[in-house]
Amino acid sequence: MSSFGDPATFLASLDFDKKLAHYDIQGSSAWAQALFRADVISDDELKSIIKGLQSITKELNEGIFPFRVELEDIHFNIERRLIELVGPVGGKLHSGRSRNDQIATDIRLFCKDAISNILVLLKRFQKTLVDKAESHIDVMLPGYTHLQRAQPVLLSHHLLSYFEMVTRDVIRFKQAFDRVDVLPLGSAALSGTPYGVDREWLANELGFGNISMNSMDAVSDRDFITDIEFSASMTMIHLSRLCEEIILWSSEEFNYVTAGDAYTSGSSIMPQKRNPDIAELIRGKVGRVAGALISTIVTLKGLPLAYNRDLQEDKEPLFDVVTTLQDSLDMMAGMLESLEFNTDRMDADSRDDLLLATEVADYLTKKGVPFRESHGVVKSLFEKIVEDGVSLSDLDLNYYKEFSTYFEEDIKLINTESAIAARNITGGTSKLQVIQRINDARMGLSEDEQD
Amino acid sequence: MSSFGDPATFLASLDFDKKLAHYDIQGSSAWAQALFRADVISDDELKSIIKGLQSITKELNEGIFPFRVELEDIHFNIERRLIELVGPVGGKLHSGRSRNDQIATDIRLFCKDAISNILVLLKRFQKTLVDKAESHIDVMLPGYTHLQRAQPVLLSHHLLSYFEMVTRDVIRFKQAFDRVDVLPLGSAALSGTPYGVDREWLANELGFGNISMNSMDAVSDRDFITDIEFSASMTMIHLSRLCEEIILWSSEEFNYVTAGDAYTSGSSIMPQKRNPDIAELIRGKVGRVAGALISTIVTLKGLPLAYNRDLQEDKEPLFDVVTTLQDSLDMMAGMLESLEFNTDRMDADSRDDLLLATEVADYLTKKGVPFRESHGVVKSLFEKIVEDGVSLSDLDLNYYKEFSTYFEEDIKLINTESAIAARNITGGTSKLQVIQRINDARMGLSEDEQD
Amino acid sequence: MSSFGDPATFLASLDFDKKLAHYDIQGSSAWAQALFRADVISDDELKSIIKGLQSITKELNEGIFPFRVELEDIHFNIERRLIELVGPVGGKLHSGRSRNDQIATDIRLFCKDAISNILVLLKRFQKTLVDKAESHIDVMLPGYTHLQRAQPVLLSHHLLSYFEMVTRDVIRFKQAFDRVDVLPLGSAALSGTPYGVDREWLANELGFGNISMNSMDAVSDRDFITDIEFSASMTMIHLSRLCEEIILWSSEEFNYVTAGDAYTSGSSIMPQKRNPDIAELIRGKVGRVAGALISTIVTLKGLPLAYNRDLQEDKEPLFDVVTTLQDSLDMMAGMLESLEFNTDRMDADSRDDLLLATEVADYLTKKGVPFRESHGVVKSLFEKIVEDGVSLSDLDLNYYKEFSTYFEEDIKLINTESAIAARNITGGTSKLQVIQRINDARMGLSEDEQD
Amino acid sequence: MSSFGDPATFLASLDFDKKLAHYDIQGSSAWAQALFRADVISDDELKSIIKGLQSITKELNEGIFPFRVELEDIHFNIERRLIELVGPVGGKLHSGRSRNDQIATDIRLFCKDAISNILVLLKRFQKTLVDKAESHIDVMLPGYTHLQRAQPVLLSHHLLSYFEMVTRDVIRFKQAFDRVDVLPLGSAALSGTPYGVDREWLANELGFGNISMNSMDAVSDRDFITDIEFSASMTMIHLSRLCEEIILWSSEEFNYVTAGDAYTSGSSIMPQKRNPDIAELIRGKVGRVAGALISTIVTLKGLPLAYNRDLQEDKEPLFDVVTTLQDSLDMMAGMLESLEFNTDRMDADSRDDLLLATEVADYLTKKGVPFRESHGVVKSLFEKIVEDGVSLSDLDLNYYKEFSTYFEEDIKLINTESAIAARNITGGTSKLQVIQRINDARMGLSEDEQD
Repeated sequence: MSSFGDPATFLASLDFDKKLAHYDIQGSSAWAQALFRADVISDDELKSIIKGLQSITKELNEGIFPFRVELEDIHFNIERRLIELVGPVGGKLHSGRSRNDQIATDIRLFCKDAISNILVLLKRFQKTLVDKAESHIDVMLPGYTHLQRAQPVLLSHHLLSYFEMVTRDVIRFKQAFDRVDVLPLGSAALSGTPYGVDREWLANELGFGNISMNSMDAVSDRDFITDIEFSASMTMIHLSRLCEEIILWSSEEFNYVTAGDAYTSGSSIMPQKRNPDIAELIRGKVGRVAGALISTIVTLKGLPLAYNRDLQEDKEPLFDVVTTLQDSLDMMAGMLESLEFNTDRMDADSRDDLLLATEVADYLTKKGVPFRESHGVVKSLFEKIVEDGVSLSDLDLNYYKEFSTYFEEDIKLINTESAIAARNITGGTSKLQVIQRINDARMGLSEDEQD
Repeated sequence: MSSFGDPATFLASLDFDKKLAHYDIQGSSAWAQALFRADVISDDELKSIIKGLQSITKELNEGIFPFRVELEDIHFNIERRLIELVGPVGGKLHSGRSRNDQIATDIRLFCKDAISNILVLLKRFQKTLVDKAESHIDVMLPGYTHLQRAQPVLLSHHLLSYFEMVTRDVIRFKQAFDRVDVLPLGSAALSGTPYGVDREWLANELGFGNISMNSMDAVSDRDFITDIEFSASMTMIHLSRLCEEIILWSSEEFNYVTAGDAYTSGSSIMPQKRNPDIAELIRGKVGRVAGALISTIVTLKGLPLAYNRDLQEDKEPLFDVVTTLQDSLDMMAGMLESLEFNTDRMDADSRDDLLLATEVADYLTKKGVPFRESHGVVKSLFEKIVEDGVSLSDLDLNYYKEFSTYFEEDIKLINTESAIAARNITGGTSKLQVIQRINDARMGLSEDEQD
Repeated sequence: MSSFGDPATFLASLDFDKKLAHYDIQGSSAWAQALFRADVISDDELKSIIKGLQSITKELNEGIFPFRVELEDIHFNIERRLIELVGPVGGKLHSGRSRNDQIATDIRLFCKDAISNILVLLKRFQKTLVDKAESHIDVMLPGYTHLQRAQPVLLSHHLLSYFEMVTRDVIRFKQAFDRVDVLPLGSAALSGTPYGVDREWLANELGFGNISMNSMDAVSDRDFITDIEFSASMTMIHLSRLCEEIILWSSEEFNYVTAGDAYTSGSSIMPQKRNPDIAELIRGKVGRVAGALISTIVTLKGLPLAYNRDLQEDKEPLFDVVTTLQDSLDMMAGMLESLEFNTDRMDADSRDDLLLATEVADYLTKKGVPFRESHGVVKSLFEKIVEDGVSLSDLDLNYYKEFSTYFEEDIKLINTESAIAARNITGGTSKLQVIQRINDARMGLSEDEQD
Repeated sequence: MSSFGDPATFLASLDFDKKLAHYDIQGSSAWAQALFRADVISDDELKSIIKGLQSITKELNEGIFPFRVELEDIHFNIERRLIELVGPVGGKLHSGRSRNDQIATDIRLFCKDAISNILVLLKRFQKTLVDKAESHIDVMLPGYTHLQRAQPVLLSHHLLSYFEMVTRDVIRFKQAFDRVDVLPLGSAALSGTPYGVDREWLANELGFGNISMNSMDAVSDRDFITDIEFSASMTMIHLSRLCEEIILWSSEEFNYVTAGDAYTSGSSIMPQKRNPDIAELIRGKVGRVAGALISTIVTLKGLPLAYNRDLQEDKEPLFDVVTTLQDSLDMMAGMLESLEFNTDRMDADSRDDLLLATEVADYLTKKGVPFRESHGVVKSLFEKIVEDGVSLSDLDLNYYKEFSTYFEEDIKLINTESAIAARNITGGTSKLQVIQRINDARMGLSEDEQD
C-alpha cells in the first residue's frame, strides 16, 4: 500500500450522473437556441450543435455512446463527444454557461420527472385503498390503541386513514415540485451570465414554471433535494405503518389477512412459512430514505457561498430515494390489491363485548351521568360480566341496574353495529360517513386525472 | 439499587406538556360549548364549566395553579382542578372526548401560534437582509466558489441570496401551517365521538381552517410535527451557511466584517479575541434541530394504528425546535443589523485582476472564439500577467495580441465595475438587477404585512 | 417586534451546565493544589481557595448558592462566588487554566459517573433476564421469523438472546469509559499551560486513568460524547426490540404476557384496556437518543481546530441521553421482573405440528435425502396433514411412507420436546445448553461485582 | 401504469450481495467439512462439494459465473450452480444450515476484511501525519479558537492533534473488529442446528476468534454493522475537520498551503482557480456515512425476534460506508503528503504581538498578580500598543510600568519562540514535547506493524 489511488477517479461522478444524460442534452439544446437568439452563435452553428446533440441522443438510446470516466462527468463526456462529432463549433455551446448552473438545471429536470411519476404512483395507491375500502364496506374489525382492542371500527374506515396520510403526501410532493420548478440556467458560475439570453424563453422551452432570482443562490441551492427526501421519508413512514399492520395481521395470532403468493415467500428451511417479505422489506427501507435525508442535511450544513464540491454528494442519495420510493409504492399497491381479508375472524373479534365499554359509558353520559362517574360504573359492570362469563346480549335490565339506576330498556339496543353507526360525524367510522368519504375520494382522484 | 423507580413518574408528561395549559383550556371551552349545542350538557352546566376554566386560567396566569405531577399530564391536572372548583359537573366536560383527540388539538393550537411567530421572525430577518443590501448597494467583494475567489459580485447581491433561501423557508412554513390547521377534536379515542357535536362550528370557534376527515388518522397523525421540524432544519441550514460566512469574514485573514459587541465575546485568557460566538452557536444548533427531526421520524416508524404511547415523545423535540429556531432567527437578525462591513478591504480584494479572467474569456467568445479555446488563451494570458507582475489596466493592446488576434481596443473597457454591470440578467449581480430585486422584495414584504 | 433579544441570554449555558457544579469544584480543588505544588500559589492561598470551594459546595448542597444567569455559565458563577467569599486570591485559581480545558474536564468527570451508573443498570437488567430465564427454564413457545411461527424454542433461550445484546452494550460502555477516562486539564486554551503543573498527579487526584497527549485535540475533542450517545442508541434499540415483543405479547391476539399493574395503564375512555404504556414509551424513546447522536455528529462536522463555540451544544443532548437511558433501563428491569408469562398459551402454541416441519426435513436429511429434496417432501406431507386435519402423533408409518420411503419407525420420536432437545449445540435452544449459558452468565455477573 | 412490478425483482438482493460471493464459498467449504466431520455427509460427498465450490470460485474469478437474478440472492445462485456442477449431492450442503446463519457469517467475513484494510489505511494516514509533523518540526503558525488567532503553536503540534483523533479511530475499529469476530454459523434458522457439528472447529477454520452463544441473537444481530458505521462516521468527522482546515488554508486569504495538482482542480469557466476539490468532497461525504448509520438504526428499531426481512437492508449502507471510508482515507493521506506549507506566511502571522497577550498575562500572574487582574492590565496594554502602532520588541520597561509595577526587565524575554517553548508540559506545543510525541507515535506505529 505504498502508492495512493487516483484522485481523478475519486472525483469522477460519471458513474452516477450518467443518469442525467438526456436531461443534460435537453438543457444544452435549449441553451444553444438561447445563444442563437442572443446572437452569440449563428444559425449554422446552432444547426450543427443541435444535430450533434441529436446524434448523441441516438448513441445513448442505442447504448453505443462512448462513456469515458477519465472525462469526469456526464457534462464533459457529452461536450467532448459533441466536439468530436461537429468540430470546434461544439466548443461554443458552453459559452456563458458553467457546470454550476448546468448541473443544477439537469437535476431539476430529473426531479420534475421523478415527482410526476411519484404522484402517479401515490394516486394509484390511493385508488387501491379506496377500492379495497369500498369492496369491504361492511366488514368490521377491532380498532386498536396501544395494540389493545379498543372499539369496533369498519375495515374501510381503517384503510381510509391511510388514504388521508397519502393525501398529505400528495400535497407535500406537489409543493416540492413547485420549489423544483425553477430554472437556474443563466446563473453561470455564480454571478449570472454576461450574455443577454432570454431566461423566460429558456424556462418556457424547458418547461419550467419559474426562473431563479439570484444567481449565487441558484448554483448552490439544493433545498429542493431535501424537500424530496423529506417528502419521501414521510411517505415511507406511512408505508411502514401499513406494512407493520400487514405483518401483524399475517401472523397466526391475528390471522386477519393473506397477501398474494407473489408478495410472500417461503423459508429455505421451514416449508410451512408464509413470510410477508415484501411488507418487511418496505418497512426496512424507511431507514435508507431517512438516512438519505440526513445525509444531505449533513452535507449542506455550514457551506459558504456559492458552489462547493461537497454538493456533488447530492445525487446518489436523491437517486436512491426516488427509486426506493417508486418501487415501494408500486409494491405496496400491488400487495394491497392482492390482500385477502379474513373477514370472519375480523368480524368475530370485533364482536367482543369489551369493545362496547365506551359505548355503554357514553350511554350513561347521555342519560346525565358525568363522564368520569360513568367510567367507574362501566368498569365495575364489565368486570362482573367477565367474572360471570355472560355476554351483553344475554343480560336483562336488572343486571345493569345493580351498577347504575340510569340504565333503561334502551341499553339493549347497544351492540357492535350500533356502536359503529353512532360514530356518524365527519371523520367517524359510521358507514354513512365512510361512504361519503369514499365518494369524495373518488371525486378528488378523478379531478386529478383531468388535470 | 435493589428497588425500581416509579413508573408513574416515567410516564408523566406534566413537566413539558404544562406548556400547553392555555391551549388545553381553549380547546376545553370550545368543547363544552359544542356539548351544550349538542344538548349533552345544560346551559347551567356550560356556565359552570366555563367559569371554572376561567378561574383556572387566572390561577395559571398568577402562577398559583396547583400542578400535581402525580396526575400525569396537563389534561388530568386541569380536569381534576375543574372538578375541585365546580363540582361533579366538571366531570361532564370529557364526555365524548378522549385524551387522544384532546392532545392532538392542543399541540395543533400550539403549532399554529409557533408558526405564526416564526413567520414574523423570518420576515424580519428578510427585511434586515434587504436593508443591509440596500444600504450597501455599491459595495463589491469577491464572489467565491470552493472558497476560492472567482468573480466580483455586489455585496448586496450576495446578501440577497439569503433572502431567496428564506423566501423558500417562508413558503415551507406557510404550507406546514396549512397541514397543522386541521381540527382533530371530535375524533375521540379513535373512531369518532358518538355525540352529534358540530365539528365545523368547533373548528371555526378554535380558528381552524379545516377538520380532519378520518378519526383514526386524526388521533395518530404527527406528520405536521415533522413538517415543522424539517422546515426548521432547512432554515437552520440557511442560517448555518450565513454564520459560516460571518465567522470566516470575522477572521483576521478575511477581515470583512465586525459584528456588534453584543454578538461577539472575549476570551477568559486571551484579551485580544473578538470571537463570533453567536454565529458559532447558531451554526452549532443545526445539530439539535436536525436531531429532533430524526428523533420524530424514528419514533413514528412502524407504528400500527391508532394511538400508541410512543407518540408522547413528539412534544419535547417540537418545543425545543420552536424555541431554538425563534431564538436563532432573533439573534441572526440582530447580529446582521449590527454587522459593519469593511468595505475598503472588500473593494480592494474584488479588484484583483484574476477575478476578471472569466470576463476576458467571455470577451473573446463574443468576438467569435469558441469558449473552450478562449479558456486556454486566457489561462496563458493571466499566467503571463502574474509572471510579469503587471496589472490589466496597464497593458496595451499588443500585450493582448500576443495571445489572440481577436483582442481589440475595447478590451480596455473591461474592469471590475464592467464585469459586474455585464451580469444584467434576471438573477445576475448587476446593480440594476439587484435594485429591481430589492424593490420586489420590499413589495412582497409589505404585501405580507397587509395580510 | 422591533427590538432584538439579549445575546447574553442566548449564549448563557448556566441553565444546563449547572448540572456540572460539583464536578467543576472537584476540578478546581485539584487545580488549586496543582498550582500550589508548582509554586504558583502559596500554602495560605491554597487554603483560602479550598475553604472557599468548600463553602460553595455547602451552598450548593443546601440549595442557597446564588446562581446568576448574567454570569453566563457555571464556571464564572463559581469563580465569582469564590472571589466574593475569599477575596482577590480567588482570582488566582484560574491561573494557567482556560474554560476550554476546564469544561472538558468537567464533562469527562460527569461522563465517568454516568457510565458507571449505566453499567450498574445494564447488569441489573441482565440479572433480571437471567432470573426470568432460570425460573422459566422449561417453558416452550414458538420461535418466530418474519413474525411467523417457525420452530419451538425455550422461553429462557429467547430471553437470553437479550442477555447477549446487553453483554455487547456493557462492553461498548466500558470501552467508551476508557476513551472518557483521559484528563484534558493542563491544556489551557489550546496550546498547553505554561506552568509546570504535574498533570500525572492531577489525573491521579481526579481519578483519571490517562492524560491527554495533545492540547489542541484535548480542548476540542468531543468524540467521547458521541461514543456514549452511540452506545446508548444501541442499548435503546435492544430495549425497543424487547418492548416490541412485550407489546405484541400483551395483545389479546398473542396473550403471552401480563405486565405488572404499575407498568400498564387504563384508558380515559375505555375501561377494559391494559395498555403496555411503559413498553411503548421506551420504544418511542429510541428516537430521542438516536436524534441526540445525530445532533452531535452534525455539530462536530467540519469544525476547524481548536475550540469553537458550537461545542457548547454538546451538553444538552448528552444529559438527555444519560437520563433517558438510565430511566429506560430502570423501567425495563422493573417491567421485566413484573412480567407474568401465560405459559399455558405459549406451550399450546409451540405444540403446533407445523413447527416441526424443519425437524422432519432434518430427519430425512439424516437418512440421506439431500436437503433440498427433503424440503419438497416435507412440504407435501404437511399440506396433506393440514388437509386431512390430522396431527403428527396420530399418524402411522404408512402415512409417511407415501411421501418418502426414507421414513422409518423412529419418525414417531419427533415431537416438540425432541425438536428442542436436538438443538444441543453451543448457542442452541436445548435445555442443557440454556442451563450452561445461565451458569456462565451468573458467573460473569458475579465476577463483575467483585471488580 | 395498470400493472404492478415484479415482487421477485424487488426482493432480489443479488445485485449487491454478489459482493459476498467469495465469502459465501469460504463459509460453505467450511460447512461442508463440518458436515463431513459430523458424519452427515460422506468423504466422497465432501470431495464433490469442495470440487464444485472450487469450480465456482474459478468461474467467479474468470468473470464467467452465470449470475441469475431470478434466483434472488448470491446464496441460491451458488447453491443452484453447485447442483448443476456436481449433481444432487450439492443439495446436501445446506443441511442443518439456513440462509439466516449463512448470510450472517458471510457479512461478518466481509466486515473482518474491511476493518483490517481500514486499519492499514488509518495507520498509513497516521504515518503521513507524523512524517509531515517531523519534517516541519520548527514551523510556527497561529493557533486558532473561534477561527480567531489566539496563541502561536507549532504546525507539527497542530498536525499531531489529528494523529490523536485517528488513534481513537484505530481503537474504535479494533474494538468493532472484536464484536464482528464471532461465528454465527450453526445457529441455523433461529434455534440452532440439530447436527452435532463442531462450531469451535468451524470458527477456527474460518478464522473467527469466538462463536455466538445464542442462536436467536446470532441470526438477528446486526450491531456489528452499526459499530462499523459509527466508527466510520467518527473518522469521517475527523477527516472533515482537517479538510475544512485545508480548504481554509488554501484560500487566498489564509494562503497557508498548496495541495498537489492532482488534489485540486480548475474551473470550467475560471482559468485561475485552484479548487481544493478533494478536500471538499471528503468533507461532503460525512453526510453519506452518517446517513448510513442512521439508516441502519432506523431499520433495526423495534424489530421482534428473530430474523426479519428488514435486515436485508443492512448490506448496501455497509458496503457504501466501507468503500467511502477506504477511498477517503486513501485520498486524505495522498493529499496530505502532497501539501506544501507556505511557512513564511505562517511564520509571519504567528509573530503577531497580539498572540502573546496570554503570555504577558501569565508573566504577571507568575509575578503574583491574580489572574483576573492581570487580564485587565494586559488588555489595556495591548490596546495602547495597537493605538501607538508599536511592537513589543521595541518597548522599554517604562512603557510596561505604566500598566503595572510588576513588570521587570525579564518581560523583554517574551516572544513567539519563548511562548511556544514555555508550553513544555505533556500535550503542550513546545518543541521538546512534540518531538517526544513524534517518537512515541513512531514507536506505536512500528509496534503495530510487527503485530
